[in-house]
Amino acid sequence: MARVYNFSAGPAALPEGVLSEAADEMLDYRGCGMSVLEMSHRSQDFQSIFDDTESTLRRVLGIPDTYRVLFLQGGATLEFAGIPMNLMRNGRAGYLVTGNFARKAWQEAEKYGQADVLATSEDTDFDRIPDLDGLSVPEGEDYVYICQNNTIYGTMFHDLPETGDVPLVSDVSSCFLSCPMDVSRYGLVYAGAQKNAGPAGVTVVIVRDDLLADGPALTCCPTYLDYRLESEKGSMLNTPNTFGIYLCGKVFRWVEEQGGLAAMGAVNAEKSGMLYDYLDASETFHGTARPGSRSIANVTFRTDSVATDAAFIAGAKERGLVGIKGHRLVGGMRASVYNAVPVEGVAALVSYMREFESGRSS
Amino acid sequence: MARVYNFSAGPAALPEGVLSEAADEMLDYRGCGMSVLEMSHRSQDFQSIFDDTESTLRRVLGIPDTYRVLFLQGGATLEFAGIPMNLMRNGRAGYLVTGNFARKAWQEAEKYGQADVLATSEDTDFDRIPDLDGLSVPEGEDYVYICQNNTIYGTMFHDLPETGDVPLVSDVSSCFLSCPMDVSRYGLVYAGAQKNAGPAGVTVVIVRDDLLADGPALTCCPTYLDYRLESEKGSMLNTPNTFGIYLCGKVFRWVEEQGGLAAMGAVNAEKSGMLYDYLDASETFHGTARPGSRSIANVTFRTDSVATDAAFIAGAKERGLVGIKGHRLVGGMRASVYNAVPVEGVAALVSYMREFESGRSS
Repeated sequence: MARVYNFSAGPAALPEGVLSEAADEMLDYRGCGMSVLEMSHRSQDFQSIFDDTESTLRRVLGIPDTYRVLFLQGGATLEFAGIPMNLMRNGRAGYLVTGNFARKAWQEAEKYGQADVLATSEDTDFDRIPDLDGLSVPEGEDYVYICQNNTIYGTMFHDLPETGDVPLVSDVSSCFLSCPMDVSRYGLVYAGAQKNAGPAGVTVVIVRDDLLADGPALTCCPTYLDYRLESEKGSMLNTPNTFGIYLCGKVFRWVEEQGGLAAMGAVNAEKSGMLYDYLDASETFHGTARPGSRSIANVTFRTDSVATDAAFIAGAKERGLVGIKGHRLVGGMRASVYNAVPVEGVAALVSYMREFESGRSS
Repeated sequence: MARVYNFSAGPAALPEGVLSEAADEMLDYRGCGMSVLEMSHRSQDFQSIFDDTESTLRRVLGIPDTYRVLFLQGGATLEFAGIPMNLMRNGRAGYLVTGNFARKAWQEAEKYGQADVLATSEDTDFDRIPDLDGLSVPEGEDYVYICQNNTIYGTMFHDLPETGDVPLVSDVSSCFLSCPMDVSRYGLVYAGAQKNAGPAGVTVVIVRDDLLADGPALTCCPTYLDYRLESEKGSMLNTPNTFGIYLCGKVFRWVEEQGGLAAMGAVNAEKSGMLYDYLDASETFHGTARPGSRSIANVTFRTDSVATDAAFIAGAKERGLVGIKGHRLVGGMRASVYNAVPVEGVAALVSYMREFESGRSS
């Protein structure tokens, strides 16, 4: 079969050139006589791959020298615990609950201290980012936590909350590398790689030096999750996901070759814009995220019936447009238009939406 | 370059056929139009891969139905915390300290309760497994913990400690799938995949049902490490290392095709035996592990000087025999003869040892 257009929310489409290179290097990485999969993480060959991956990411994101970059495992779910265990020195943090993963992060933090909900959009089924103008951060919070792009609900923070001296912690999993980002606005940002950065099984954590200085806040923190120690050990406290890191490096280089984050942001705005424009004019489909809160990466929409949604999803699959089904919590449709999804793929989806809609009205 | 013989301790050699298949399927997995790397973990295609991986492992190891199999991330280091957090109901466990990783596991457990050292071979630089005849397990221990094969020191438990009703917990990372294993002897066994099972970034945890029944013992256990919940969610509480699991499945099938664990055990005994026989007769090289405690997977040896060791390692590399350098904690040499290292590779190493030795004595 030809390669499909893959709109999955993650794991998700990867650049074809990255996959081709990985296939070509599978039995022999650049003349070293073995696969990257077989390479000791302590070898010079792998250390070079690792260093190149980190330095490419630093260039692409413009990461200040005062930030450490970690490549860990366990996904966002493990960091839901790692963040309070490392940062909750006063036993208290503020959470903005804007979706399922923000809520899970907040619930996990409650195990380790006082986790205050500073704002939520749960009352409107997470269809928007709450108004941040009235946000007040109580004194003594160790950090303020957001999930910057809510994959399931198709919403995204377009402005960041003002938190003064309180470090902002952000799960950027599904908007990582989608558009430019000012790392210096954050105390810690992290992302599961399986959206825009590489394969599942790598978590990128970017954290400001001073937050690591005293080691983990809580003594129950597993050594694996000790960010200071992982930083001292160059993410090799134990064997990292070597092949995953190698693939991330290839994806970072690909982003750079495309023109970096400004170029990615422009293309992603074009792709998501094509869908939002169609949705705003459609009588069959409607977007579920409020204008002003719409994600650049995950476009969520539905029709007026579950049966029609199912018919649309099935027809899309027949046309090689896959991964369109919405998350099981909300149903409907979701088109994730991450970096590796080409404009032509989105055009094909819009074209099918038009065809489907006209078929219903005729 | 031709493919080398790779004696790395992990990540380590993988079967060439597994790598070739992975390369062939990289852009299009069996006609589905995408790479396994791009596949949603919630898709039917991936669920089939996952189910096949687990069922193949169950056949290969003969895992009883009363055991759950989990595919997690974070390596042994994360499980050093996960095990006490899940199992330390009485706040107390016994540890056999037979090497670096057993010691790390014990130290981590001390953060979560009372971790008793029941036996150690630290006084003889971990050159053997302590005599188990006199082992006494104090009443009230939640489990007894061993590291079954000590990669750094080249030692291995050839008999298991008798622990009565107290569950035996074993880190089998570097002897997993090296030879037959009676899973029913254990309460929990786990392995980092990057030795015999697949790539780095997957941890296989096999745990007896009844130990999961009440959920984690400690409330500070991160949700990610809640073995009961991971079991209920089929290891998909969050996105697992999908590509790593897919490769593990291919390796498990390869083991089965080779004749299963009995066949692997015979070949591995032959390979390690070739090295031990040479070492026992050599005047230049000597093995560091005591007979009776020698590993089937990691053969550790040295000469009488660091300079000679370095010359040997450099010469080996020139001959395409790589990954021979001993762990930085102990120096010397280590040949890891995992399943994917062919008999011919070991023969080439022995041949070079002979050549090196005769060159020195001539």
